[in-house]
Amino acid sequence: MGNTEDGKNISASVKSGGKKKELKKETGLGLTNKKDENFGEWYSEVVVNAEMIEYYDISGCYILRPWTMAIWETMQEFFDAEIKKMKIKNCYFPLFVSPGVLQKEKDHIEGFAPEVAWVTKSGQSDLEVPIAIRPTSETVMYPYYSKWIRGHRDLPLKLNQWCNVVRWEFSHPTPFIRSREFLWQEGHTAFATQEEADTEVLEILELYRQIYEDYLAVPVIKGKKSELEKFAGGFYTTSVEAFIPNTGRGIQGATSHCLGQNFAKMFDITFENDKGEKAMVWQNSWAYSTRTIGVMVMVHGDDKGLVLPPKVAAVQVIVVPVPFKDADTQAIFDACVSTVKTLSEAGLRVETDLRDNYSPGWKYSHWEMKGVPLRIEIGPKDLAKSQVRVVRRDTSDKTDIPMAKEMMVDQVKEILDKIQQNLLNVAKQKRDECIKKIRTWDEFVEALGQKKLILAPWCDEEEVEKDVKARTKGEMGAAKTLCTPFDQPVLEEGTLCFASGKPARKWTYWGRSY
Amino acid sequence: MGNTEDGKNISASVKSGGKKKELKKETGLGLTNKKDENFGEWYSEVVVNAEMIEYYDISGCYILRPWTMAIWETMQEFFDAEIKKMKIKNCYFPLFVSPGVLQKEKDHIEGFAPEVAWVTKSGQSDLEVPIAIRPTSETVMYPYYSKWIRGHRDLPLKLNQWCNVVRWEFSHPTPFIRSREFLWQEGHTAFATQEEADTEVLEILELYRQIYEDYLAVPVIKGKKSELEKFAGGFYTTSVEAFIPNTGRGIQGATSHCLGQNFAKMFDITFENDKGEKAMVWQNSWAYSTRTIGVMVMVHGDDKGLVLPPKVAAVQVIVVPVPFKDADTQAIFDACVSTVKTLSEAGLRVETDLRDNYSPGWKYSHWEMKGVPLRIEIGPKDLAKSQVRVVRRDTSDKTDIPMAKEMMVDQVKEILDKIQQNLLNVAKQKRDECIKKIRTWDEFVEALGQKKLILAPWCDEEEVEKDVKARTKGEMGAAKTLCTPFDQPVLEEGTLCFASGKPARKWTYWGRSY
Repeated sequence: MGNTEDGKNISASVKSGGKKKELKKETGLGLTNKKDENFGEWYSEVVVNAEMIEYYDISGCYILRPWTMAIWETMQEFFDAEIKKMKIKNCYFPLFVSPGVLQKEKDHIEGFAPEVAWVTKSGQSDLEVPIAIRPTSETVMYPYYSKWIRGHRDLPLKLNQWCNVVRWEFSHPTPFIRSREFLWQEGHTAFATQEEADTEVLEILELYRQIYEDYLAVPVIKGKKSELEKFAGGFYTTSVEAFIPNTGRGIQGATSHCLGQNFAKMFDITFENDKGEKAMVWQNSWAYSTRTIGVMVMVHGDDKGLVLPPKVAAVQVIVVPVPFKDADTQAIFDACVSTVKTLSEAGLRVETDLRDNYSPGWKYSHWEMKGVPLRIEIGPKDLAKSQVRVVRRDTSDKTDIPMAKEMMVDQVKEILDKIQQNLLNVAKQKRDECIKKIRTWDEFVEALGQKKLILAPWCDEEEVEKDVKARTKGEMGAAKTLCTPFDQPVLEEGTLCFASGKPARKWTYWGRSY
Repeated sequence: MGNTEDGKNISASVKSGGKKKELKKETGLGLTNKKDENFGEWYSEVVVNAEMIEYYDISGCYILRPWTMAIWETMQEFFDAEIKKMKIKNCYFPLFVSPGVLQKEKDHIEGFAPEVAWVTKSGQSDLEVPIAIRPTSETVMYPYYSKWIRGHRDLPLKLNQWCNVVRWEFSHPTPFIRSREFLWQEGHTAFATQEEADTEVLEILELYRQIYEDYLAVPVIKGKKSELEKFAGGFYTTSVEAFIPNTGRGIQGATSHCLGQNFAKMFDITFENDKGEKAMVWQNSWAYSTRTIGVMVMVHGDDKGLVLPPKVAAVQVIVVPVPFKDADTQAIFDACVSTVKTLSEAGLRVETDLRDNYSPGWKYSHWEMKGVPLRIEIGPKDLAKSQVRVVRRDTSDKTDIPMAKEMMVDQVKEILDKIQQNLLNVAKQKRDECIKKIRTWDEFVEALGQKKLILAPWCDEEEVEKDVKARTKGEMGAAKTLCTPFDQPVLEEGTLCFASGKPARKWTYWGRSY
């Protein structure tokens, strides 16, 4: 430790007076905001103090620090391997789009045009034609799909890319959740039949569920977006939807779209089928972004800072020496180093904090702020008893476990598994407590006021959703559909739409959202 | 096969008439240009026909297809693991730079300003201040290094990012070699002492050598750049230099810069050392890009197309069935599938091409075009003798090897190792044949005319290099220094500079370059 990138800001805070003016509160010792009282400020403080994010001098752009990138890379490794099993191949298309193709699909560009950033100059010269920066790559890629796809043997065409995209949003930017540049993967596939496209949409959606639930320990609801909320220019959109109890807002976690044949028509992506007839392809596109990380922070974080699920934590276990007066400090340090060695060799991500200029208590707070799932404390008494004390970040539970190699490894692994599971369970319980099933407009308004995730019978008419939006407009933002869950409760005959009074066609989640 | 992304363009070429106008020669069956006759056109044809690159509708931007990305990912996996061992951590800084910081280091921005792309609009609105797209990230990152680095415990700070950068070049764009957007990694490190910085510069340079020599089988020369050729704003630059015999041009393969304390001064990156004194950090930056792939294509490619070193090939072995009249075609196909299974299980990247609408001969040409290192042919006679025929891409050598599992695996692995080694040996021999050691100006001019890689005694004066550039200006481009190799021949006392006649201080490589 000490000479690693983490823990940088700390030493600043203990020095007498910061040398630069921009230095504010960078100490890892506690947050000034509380999650339940001041959620927005709490969130900003956590992502900065946990050293995930540094604010940048261009609004809406953020620096992703190593503590963040480790999480991103873990998810990437999982997802990339999974899509490779599905024979999806990685490629890289340019950052730039010419205006002609960008505007080819009308609904699509209407959805993105206001947010597109334009390059108009290079050096001192004006470009002949302004060039757009990709907000997403449908229009970048599909002219080439048209070129590459000729016969049925060219299908399916299944590509993915890991890249940055730019959406020059004007609403309140939020680290991870709403930023002007973000990292994502975008998959773009083309099939001969709708059936194949439909199948893939759900296969990918399941991977997104796994990212949220199995890695980030965030419960999500799988479902279909409404016509109003679907991807601009697409056929239908499925998503995994998360929920932030503190703000009572839903958040679209990741989307898997079936584009149907709409882009195929616009970009002339046709093929000769096995009967020698010309046919249009069926297309999908799907993406998840660094937003995932923001959702995780919001769901698990507490008043001590970040809480990381073990599966994505850069450091799963932090070992802290607890020297005491006349005790043999060197022996304690040696035990810490040997504990790191034992656990590392067992495949865990472990570090020890041997810095001599911080107290154990300070270190506890620091690593709690950074969200490390498990802390191991080693003091003279532990040494004497050949044990170590382990403290869980999620529950603050303390246990003593034996120092003996195999026993320690097994027990630490078991505790980490429990933490991973507990984070999901607790988050699910909190989310479920927010779910309110309603049937009438009055109940809807009441539930909305209580920041609920509202499950309501709906007639599935676009005009009705627009009407609900208009009627709930206000300071907090309007309510809208989040998704129609695949897992549908029984819809009794005669059930009416909560908003229009027409016969309901489905149960749909409604609420405010990010 | 058949429904994978590769081999897409082929089926187009055999169809009667392309449906789209932009369809030109996309067949894998032979090149129209020869490497020795028409190098530039040959190169463009290879990268397109091997399905590495697709030309894009914005000049200087290229689509990197899966065949390319597999190579990039293999190198990335190696390099990323190596730098992680060195405790370098990944991060991600924004694509955008505000003009203020971009212009902070004068020499640096002078070097990059003409190539910087500027965003001036979002949607229909003009931005208040134009925003630059990073051509490299020194000025993006270092304001934050200033903020993060306070005391000696914050050092070293060692970060890396994998990202895209944009340099709006106006000279002739060439796929991989000179493009307006490219992928790279950029490492940015800060140390308390010059000694640490110096050490890291060479450690990274050694990794770059390994990428070229051990992965891409391209011989490179390690050395130091001249004052004129070093990184704008840096202290000194080291590089690995490759050479393209066909054009007689050197090409800078990758660079590892010591930035000295210059940026530290401009960006106020100081720390309190262990004596409590304020000191400036020593910095390095280092990068390699997708250019590496272009160098590999140029060095190994031949008149049949691409030649891939086994270590980076997406497909190392292609298995082609060779049915014959009444022979049992199904048995042949089964043998192909089982061969793929055997070799895959041994960790090799193997595919079989069972398409029924192409002849074996067509398939041979196709996979030769794509540069697959080893072809296995299985026909009725092979089946009868329980053997397979293997054909090397690099030498066209044919051998029969037994079909028996272990023997086949061992022999195929051995042959792949030989191919990897042979590609490097042959490339090294060709490169070495181009090296010409000279002592006088006349010899220099003669060697330059013969497209040599010229090793010359030099006085190491900037004015003399400028003078040589001026005197050799012409259609082919001027000669300049490539590097002063670390591996210096003896410089006998009294040796004079080939260009100035002053006492020579070192042996330096000169030539035309990319």
